[in-house]
Amino acid sequence: MTAPTALNLPPVDPLPEATQAYFDKCVEKLGIVPNVLRAYAFDIAKLDAFTGMYNELMLGDSNLSKLEREMIAVAVSAENRCFYCLTAHGAAVRQLSGDPSLGEALVMNYRIAPVTPRQRAMLDFAVLMTNASATVAEADREALRAHGFSDRDIWDIAAVAGFFNMSNRMASAVEMRPNAEYHAQAR
Amino acid sequence: MTAPTALNLPPVDPLPEATQAYFDKCVEKLGIVPNVLRAYAFDIAKLDAFTGMYNELMLGDSNLSKLEREMIAVAVSAENRCFYCLTAHGAAVRQLSGDPSLGEALVMNYRIAPVTPRQRAMLDFAVLMTNASATVAEADREALRAHGFSDRDIWDIAAVAGFFNMSNRMASAVEMRPNAEYHAQAR
Amino acid sequence: MTAPTALNLPPVDPLPEATQAYFDKCVEKLGIVPNVLRAYAFDIAKLDAFTGMYNELMLGDSNLSKLEREMIAVAVSAENRCFYCLTAHGAAVRQLSGDPSLGEALVMNYRIAPVTPRQRAMLDFAVLMTNASATVAEADREALRAHGFSDRDIWDIAAVAGFFNMSNRMASAVEMRPNAEYHAQAR
Amino acid sequence: MTAPTALNLPPVDPLPEATQAYFDKCVEKLGIVPNVLRAYAFDIAKLDAFTGMYNELMLGDSNLSKLEREMIAVAVSAENRCFYCLTAHGAAVRQLSGDPSLGEALVMNYRIAPVTPRQRAMLDFAVLMTNASATVAEADREALRAHGFSDRDIWDIAAVAGFFNMSNRMASAVEMRPNAEYHAQAR
Amino acid sequence: MTAPTALNLPPVDPLPEATQAYFDKCVEKLGIVPNVLRAYAFDIAKLDAFTGMYNELMLGDSNLSKLEREMIAVAVSAENRCFYCLTAHGAAVRQLSGDPSLGEALVMNYRIAPVTPRQRAMLDFAVLMTNASATVAEADREALRAHGFSDRDIWDIAAVAGFFNMSNRMASAVEMRPNAEYHAQAR
Amino acid sequence: MTAPTALNLPPVDPLPEATQAYFDKCVEKLGIVPNVLRAYAFDIAKLDAFTGMYNELMLGDSNLSKLEREMIAVAVSAENRCFYCLTAHGAAVRQLSGDPSLGEALVMNYRIAPVTPRQRAMLDFAVLMTNASATVAEADREALRAHGFSDRDIWDIAAVAGFFNMSNRMASAVEMRPNAEYHAQAR
Repeated sequence: MTAPTALNLPPVDPLPEATQAYFDKCVEKLGIVPNVLRAYAFDIAKLDAFTGMYNELMLGDSNLSKLEREMIAVAVSAENRCFYCLTAHGAAVRQLSGDPSLGEALVMNYRIAPVTPRQRAMLDFAVLMTNASATVAEADREALRAHGFSDRDIWDIAAVAGFFNMSNRMASAVEMRPNAEYHAQAR
Repeated sequence: MTAPTALNLPPVDPLPEATQAYFDKCVEKLGIVPNVLRAYAFDIAKLDAFTGMYNELMLGDSNLSKLEREMIAVAVSAENRCFYCLTAHGAAVRQLSGDPSLGEALVMNYRIAPVTPRQRAMLDFAVLMTNASATVAEADREALRAHGFSDRDIWDIAAVAGFFNMSNRMASAVEMRPNAEYHAQAR
Repeated sequence: MTAPTALNLPPVDPLPEATQAYFDKCVEKLGIVPNVLRAYAFDIAKLDAFTGMYNELMLGDSNLSKLEREMIAVAVSAENRCFYCLTAHGAAVRQLSGDPSLGEALVMNYRIAPVTPRQRAMLDFAVLMTNASATVAEADREALRAHGFSDRDIWDIAAVAGFFNMSNRMASAVEMRPNAEYHAQAR
Repeated sequence: MTAPTALNLPPVDPLPEATQAYFDKCVEKLGIVPNVLRAYAFDIAKLDAFTGMYNELMLGDSNLSKLEREMIAVAVSAENRCFYCLTAHGAAVRQLSGDPSLGEALVMNYRIAPVTPRQRAMLDFAVLMTNASATVAEADREALRAHGFSDRDIWDIAAVAGFFNMSNRMASAVEMRPNAEYHAQAR
Repeated sequence: MTAPTALNLPPVDPLPEATQAYFDKCVEKLGIVPNVLRAYAFDIAKLDAFTGMYNELMLGDSNLSKLEREMIAVAVSAENRCFYCLTAHGAAVRQLSGDPSLGEALVMNYRIAPVTPRQRAMLDFAVLMTNASATVAEADREALRAHGFSDRDIWDIAAVAGFFNMSNRMASAVEMRPNAEYHAQAR
Repeated sequence: MTAPTALNLPPVDPLPEATQAYFDKCVEKLGIVPNVLRAYAFDIAKLDAFTGMYNELMLGDSNLSKLEREMIAVAVSAENRCFYCLTAHGAAVRQLSGDPSLGEALVMNYRIAPVTPRQRAMLDFAVLMTNASATVAEADREALRAHGFSDRDIWDIAAVAGFFNMSNRMASAVEMRPNAEYHAQAR
């Protein structure tokens, strides 16, 4: 099994029971332990903080569908050209949408992806935050409200977009390597 | 008390006991409840995920001193021109360093700040991650190792830099407003 | 059959015999008539000029293998985020290399793609030409020669990289749409 | 006679009869063999593919006047700071327009050049394609249609702009050197 | 007394009487001789040309208040990340406005600073000139006129913004060092 | 006589005697009153401050030749795409060098201009200051010293480069229009 990053930071061994159980559940549900989890597993406090935030954001309660959150993940990761996140979340978009070409389009250029105008506004905001966050103004939030997004929805869009701006940089900084299984999923 | 952001998302009321206790401890230690916490308090699960990751990163165990972590916070926030984070973490650098002009220099242009060559390498890596993460390569990690940083230290630098790339964008996206008290601190 | 671009420029009808024969050969060999050919078919002189240059560059005599030429095509198209070219030439890289993840890596971030140092130098030159051609200097050509590329090879690298800087812009300007068949090829 | 580029790729010698005739016609009409032709003449198939496309685009049938096509050539080449193309096509604009300062203005900053609003829209589209092709959208094509450009005209604008994005990069990559005669022409 | 720049260019010694008198007046009024003056004092003709232009612009007759001119100075210097000018003119904004947080906001991100819409338009023009002067067009001047600025006011805005684009670069090029006294002023 | 800028700011009338004498000398020496002087002549204090600094910098004592100062003027103005300054100082380079193609090359892309390595280092520093002044470091000054430039020379390079970063922006902000006579000079 290759190292999940370019850093020499092996997982604690043995893993605490709760962590092992979580990893086992990943294998059961996804067929793999995502390498991002193996990467963080050298320090269980860090792993727990990461999964705590990730699961709240991507799987928790929100008016944004899981697919929409994954769409934001991919559009942001494409701006940052993050190989790990594009691979893993591109697969998620293909799977959740049942439309492989949607995942590809978001990886390549979200502006030509076949999404609704409301989703396009959501992605435009996420990409603006990614590339020029200091210029975000009330008019940009109003553009989201005009598409029916509530203030809570705006928070959620911003939180997902913000999170992947962290994860993309973390992944690139340590050369995080995606599990080989993602490439063929849901094609 | 002005709203902590431009979104209409009031805190849960009353706050859960544990949250209230945490806020009380902030007032006791810092004299204020940082507005970032008031901003997240509309949803306690989100607040807890945020403080969990923040406290682990900025206050937890690391070979990077707390001041060094704050220096990364400011250098990254300056690239992203995040008013909230520059105000709050600029104050932290002034306080922890006892050198007000160091805080100012990091806000204005980290390249002229009076830091050690080792710290400069650390900040260069953090800023590279911020501006061009897709170009980070083994040579950049080697440059850190040449200054005596271990792989664990590299992880910590990357994690702090990554975190503020999230927080900066979150703060700008919702127009987070720093507590007025920061401006005069440790001048 | 959907229009190959956002412009209302139907193909000449009927196609001249030689063009029809060429399209038939495409179907026989590739299973499709690539939409780029259908797009140009509103004017046979333009179609012939395009295919003349394309075939000479991508299929003609060169020390660069066909796979290497396709690798340049994808790396350049990724910089320009051209959906059409990334889809079509990403498929070509997957097919010619027999390595689907190589195609994906070049689409996402060529810097982490598993290529030889010689190929990396070739792609670095192609991407430099794409992003900052006015800065290309003798030192950049020398870097290629140091990897064993001849002056003729440098010409060929430049010609392929130049060509896709044209095609990417043409495709984006008219919203050229890739054939649906590419997405699933060679996964 | 100095080499037409920084590469050591001498022309085939003797030139094929048809090529020699074409070069002779250039001397007769322009007083020179443009160095771009001498550069390609190391391989007659490449030369023919290049001149085939060039002549079709710049001299073939189009609703864009030859001057307008040269204006696009210069505006695009200015964005890419291509010495060869600015020199050769700047001279062409001066000659075709009879207005030397128009050629200069397009070389320096097309935004202040004295052109019609319709031509300005054409140049804005060409420059947008040059600098940010992935963002071109239907609204940009509509802006051209609002100035009376047909879909065929849009194709032609895009094709000329695309072509010079190729030629600029090719010229810079091999350090193509303009014939000295251009500088004084039509001043 | 540390050198005012990284260059070894000591002031003429003794200073001419008029220069000495000017420096004495600075000490009397500001408590310091600003290091920019000490930097230029190696050549009195250069010093006089600099102070001549500076005093005319920043202290001379204008419909822009002195505070507004200092606001432009800081907003422009922030774009250029000039440590010297941000330190000196940030202090001036704090002093003239009596609002320390206004100075900080302009240093960090002028877009969130609490200024009037008219002042915001003025700063937008100054920042546009700083970052993309070649794109300034009549519409940008009209936007100022719509806020009641006269053509003379537009000249003054442009002149101050232009001046700091010079001074910022001069200061960074020679590593000009701000007097330590500025940091604590008017906090 | 057309207005020298897009602003409605006519010269004081009549001009003060000294100003009129200066303008008369311009006509005698250059054949024209440069429009930049006519533009500033609405306010004689501003005109005098400008000419005071300009003449000191461009005509005063320096180890940089007048041609070298004009070369910096053009290289900087090309980065900022300033039509006025490129026209006026491009003519000056042609005149002082006796080499029209040198003026053209500096306007188009200074990197391919036939200058000495020492002059190239000078222009590289001027262009670095123009595009990324906040990154200038001691190593950049050392690179100039390695070519034999003294600290005084570095000051002069910086001062000329800084000045044109001001003038370029001023000229673009008010749409300053070059005298028609420049275009044909010294071709």
